[in-house]
Amino acid sequence: MRFEIIARSPDSAARAGIFHTPHGPIETPAFMPVGTQATVKGLLPADMAPIRPQCVLSNAYHLATRPGAPMVARRGGLHAFMRWDGPMLTDSGGYQVFSLSSLRQVDDRGVTIASHLNGRRRRFTPASVVKIEEQIGADIIMPLDVCIGPDASRSDTEQALERTYAWALRAAAAQRRSDQALFAIVQGGMAPDLRAQAARALAAEPFPGFAIGGLSVGEPREITDRLVALTAAELPSDRPRYLMGVGEPDQLLAYAAAGVDLFDCVLPTRLGRTGYAYVSGGKLNVSRAVLRAERGPLDPNCSCATCARYSRAYLHHLVRAGEPLAARLLSLHNVAYLVELLRSFRKALMAGASAEPRSPRRCLVPSPGGALRTG
Amino acid sequence: MRFEIIARSPDSAARAGIFHTPHGPIETPAFMPVGTQATVKGLLPADMAPIRPQCVLSNAYHLATRPGAPMVARRGGLHAFMRWDGPMLTDSGGYQVFSLSSLRQVDDRGVTIASHLNGRRRRFTPASVVKIEEQIGADIIMPLDVCIGPDASRSDTEQALERTYAWALRAAAAQRRSDQALFAIVQGGMAPDLRAQAARALAAEPFPGFAIGGLSVGEPREITDRLVALTAAELPSDRPRYLMGVGEPDQLLAYAAAGVDLFDCVLPTRLGRTGYAYVSGGKLNVSRAVLRAERGPLDPNCSCATCARYSRAYLHHLVRAGEPLAARLLSLHNVAYLVELLRSFRKALMAGASAEPRSPRRCLVPSPGGALRTG
Repeated sequence: MRFEIIARSPDSAARAGIFHTPHGPIETPAFMPVGTQATVKGLLPADMAPIRPQCVLSNAYHLATRPGAPMVARRGGLHAFMRWDGPMLTDSGGYQVFSLSSLRQVDDRGVTIASHLNGRRRRFTPASVVKIEEQIGADIIMPLDVCIGPDASRSDTEQALERTYAWALRAAAAQRRSDQALFAIVQGGMAPDLRAQAARALAAEPFPGFAIGGLSVGEPREITDRLVALTAAELPSDRPRYLMGVGEPDQLLAYAAAGVDLFDCVLPTRLGRTGYAYVSGGKLNVSRAVLRAERGPLDPNCSCATCARYSRAYLHHLVRAGEPLAARLLSLHNVAYLVELLRSFRKALMAGASAEPRSPRRCLVPSPGGALRTG
Repeated sequence: MRFEIIARSPDSAARAGIFHTPHGPIETPAFMPVGTQATVKGLLPADMAPIRPQCVLSNAYHLATRPGAPMVARRGGLHAFMRWDGPMLTDSGGYQVFSLSSLRQVDDRGVTIASHLNGRRRRFTPASVVKIEEQIGADIIMPLDVCIGPDASRSDTEQALERTYAWALRAAAAQRRSDQALFAIVQGGMAPDLRAQAARALAAEPFPGFAIGGLSVGEPREITDRLVALTAAELPSDRPRYLMGVGEPDQLLAYAAAGVDLFDCVLPTRLGRTGYAYVSGGKLNVSRAVLRAERGPLDPNCSCATCARYSRAYLHHLVRAGEPLAARLLSLHNVAYLVELLRSFRKALMAGASAEPRSPRRCLVPSPGGALRTG
């Protein structure tokens, strides 16, 4: 799986790339909607097709717990199960293993936890998680990592990053399928030197891409900014960089400028379910009385199906009435908003980038149709 | 607004008709999905377009309470507000006035109730409800009626049907718009003679259609069967008959055979939200473990988007995982199931009916494309 960089910003570390996967190209920088349980909450692949997200996420821990990875495999894999034919990525569930279960035992070889659904104890190791992800069948897979809280001690942080490093290598050794890209995850808590150390150690290994984990977990924004920039700079420039779980619009733009290529976050659908919409300049509380009579769309600059068809007055009514359509229409808009934000960033970058030598066969403009994302 | 009967069954009171409205023809018998608050719960007009429901319901009381009928009018009326361009019908909300509010005072001229949302007292009269429905702008509108429980006394039943009769005439007198068909509602409780009396009294008036209200409210099925057949037989055969709030599949077929033309019910979406699907032969509890590995669709005879794309295993997973997509995909299937049930009934009726004289210009087969239902 090849990553091409087709343009670089003359002013920042930003770049435009194409990561080629068995289910089509991922044009970066890109925002990836999150479909934790084999569905982006409330949205069908057919709803998302016009938005053209480059990649959709799911979660190995969640799917292993329900309906079970062998079950997904028997239904033809995750793409067939949820009917999304574009590129997909599974997070290992390292974060969920550490956040959802109150009962867990970590040792050098893996983690034993009680299921958040039924309390049944289950062992996860780097190798067993790769096996799960091979059954699920996403294009990009993440290894089991050790997640810590923002207040972890230095020694806990060191132990976590060492285990995360060792587990990434063990995951790579366990990999059997050659059609999945196994990324490595950079941890290192809030300590800049440990972040750099973790990034450098993994950068020396032949992973096809790298993720930055454990950020945006409650730390001040300046810390996030600094650690993202520092970590991205330590990672090989010829491989994609994926910042996990960060999705505020201004952060997407800032971190794309710092050289991050891939982003995911549950915020657009979570905000949609709670009655909020991204608009130019901020978030709109759609239940506010001032929207009651507004005939215009959520955002006049947005071309999503919600903005193309429905007035603020109607959406306000749906939110106030507690109708399920409210969550759906707002989620659709919010996902479209973030996808389009980075698509525009990429377009501007490609229009403005000129200093880099380029091969003539490389495409300078994203094709209008993009890949066919739904089957 | 003209009602054409284009075929009659040789074996029953069933007929196939076309009710012409300003937003297109309603081919009867037809099941009408319910969009109480200006949305069929969880479904967009675009989702319903392939199902081709002949008419969609909404509710004048609910819309008058929120967002308010003048607000709907200012947004261009209900069709524009919710973006459904096909025929629509508003129930007056007589049923809601009597079921949702614990504080109500009924007199000969109308009813005063405390809003179920904010407790504010509001007066509804036959004329004020027609005014609300003219602001909302559906193609078929229902007059304010007096609803009673299944255990009402004979004298209460008599008073209710007398008021309902008087209010229907007052509603007709208050009507200003000529592009809406005001039906009359037959009440009469569980007493066959009062039902017949109510039907006969209204049948003598020039209403363009008649509804049968106050049934399927808890009475035994044999009583419903008998009262539907009896009431339908008393109503003019040249005008459409609408049975309010009845939606069990076998009842739709039985009552279409008794000469009912229009049906509505919240059941298909309510069942969808609680994890049930209509299938040939009954209702399927989609959360049952036996579905966990089933690769086939909900119903192999169904051509809805849910059945065309998603396995029982996936739908089972969505229901178990509590995902909003579950309610949406099951609701879509259930609405499609009932719409198709009566469409097939109509088709069979038209293929089998031969004894009736027909004008050569009348279409014997519903056009495959049907009317364009969404804009």
